[in-house]
Amino acid sequence: MSRYALKVEYHGAPFCGWQRQADGQPSVQAAIEEALARLEPGPHRIAAAGRTDAGVHATGQVAHADLARDWDAFRLSEALNWHLRPLPVAITACARVDDEFHARFSAVERRYLFRMVARRAPVTHDAGLVWQVQSRPDLEALRTGAAHLVGRHDFTTFRAALCQADSPVKTLDEITVSEHPYPGGTEIRFALRARSFLHNQVRSIVGTLERVGAGAWPPDRVATALAARDRAACGPVAPPQGLYLTGVTYPADPFAG
Amino acid sequence: MSRYALKVEYHGAPFCGWQRQADGQPSVQAAIEEALARLEPGPHRIAAAGRTDAGVHATGQVAHADLARDWDAFRLSEALNWHLRPLPVAITACARVDDEFHARFSAVERRYLFRMVARRAPVTHDAGLVWQVQSRPDLEALRTGAAHLVGRHDFTTFRAALCQADSPVKTLDEITVSEHPYPGGTEIRFALRARSFLHNQVRSIVGTLERVGAGAWPPDRVATALAARDRAACGPVAPPQGLYLTGVTYPADPFAG
Repeated sequence: MSRYALKVEYHGAPFCGWQRQADGQPSVQAAIEEALARLEPGPHRIAAAGRTDAGVHATGQVAHADLARDWDAFRLSEALNWHLRPLPVAITACARVDDEFHARFSAVERRYLFRMVARRAPVTHDAGLVWQVQSRPDLEALRTGAAHLVGRHDFTTFRAALCQADSPVKTLDEITVSEHPYPGGTEIRFALRARSFLHNQVRSIVGTLERVGAGAWPPDRVATALAARDRAACGPVAPPQGLYLTGVTYPADPFAG
Repeated sequence: MSRYALKVEYHGAPFCGWQRQADGQPSVQAAIEEALARLEPGPHRIAAAGRTDAGVHATGQVAHADLARDWDAFRLSEALNWHLRPLPVAITACARVDDEFHARFSAVERRYLFRMVARRAPVTHDAGLVWQVQSRPDLEALRTGAAHLVGRHDFTTFRAALCQADSPVKTLDEITVSEHPYPGGTEIRFALRARSFLHNQVRSIVGTLERVGAGAWPPDRVATALAARDRAACGPVAPPQGLYLTGVTYPADPFAG
């Protein structure tokens, strides 16, 4: 048996999320497992660093797969991409790894990007790829609100009711809010980094910060909401199409060299 | 009668191009004219700075329209965007202008961007929005080849057979070739600027430069091809989905203030 790490990019729209569902809904995991079955008899079961929700995108998801044959990593990625067509899923890197490598349990950091576009006119090229809001948010308010969330906290407020994590205590290492030119408006990007995230944590945070940026919430209400440790204190959950899993860090980069 | 300048963004895929066709194929011009007819009885005939081809995108096309009523510019753009839904066409700015303003004949500069992504794995989020090639081009060769084209030249080689311009002599003010990070590969952007362009000129130039970047043509062959003044000396024409009309300059910015 040989273990391979796969870096995976996908468009979230046609999928019920990363994870294979018992009812056979299209998932990214099932798409890749079915491509693997075209190479070697299955069933295949792969594991990923982040179990992204329906509609959420990835540019740097990482998964691992076990194969009986000894594959050249480049040829494996080419063959998988061939069999994944025409689905919007692409293997952008592939590497042979030790049997101890686990895409989920070996990961020491996940990075997410959330793209919000503020303008009146509907987006065209980026339809389905950003969350569109009508008015330019107050950047300083966004940053003040976000700063309350950095560090080690009980994130019960920002966690889906269905979240299966053992503990709601997580350390959020970074939320960087940046502004970028966008035709006829402006784009706000939220970059988040943590060892791991709770279910819906990023979308709950961005949806809450959006209220702050719009002036509907004072920035300090983010601190109050966090301290409440109560899901009811959270703002609206931002929609999935603005969210991207951009990268995963391991003690040693499986794709280096 | 009141004249309005419209800044227009569109996704080129569903359209036969900017220009209204006699056979009724969907065009961006017809889409906007039909939206205008929902506001005031038509027929409306609008003019644009660049008559983009089938599949070509715009982020900064400019058109002008004449209306009988005196519209508030913001309300006009909102009403047009409402009636344009769900087509991927958006009015991102709108301004009342003098009757002498003509979107096409008053323009003193057009700007185009061409996006090329070099990587093996198929693109997912950017499908239909970039030209994908397999290998990273030689950036220095691209720049050396491009430099031959800047300035005032007879661009017969880089002009579609169907081009209706009176003269093939144009002044190309800029071709800037830049490289940008892209997951699993790299993105090359070509920024071109000129008072006006011939039909298919940008795509003919980029398609020819791609041959240079791939090492199939020495950079000097671009100079030879230009000097030949012969369409047969041109490289392949790049596909439309990488091309964006990004902006148009007028003696006075109609959207300022």
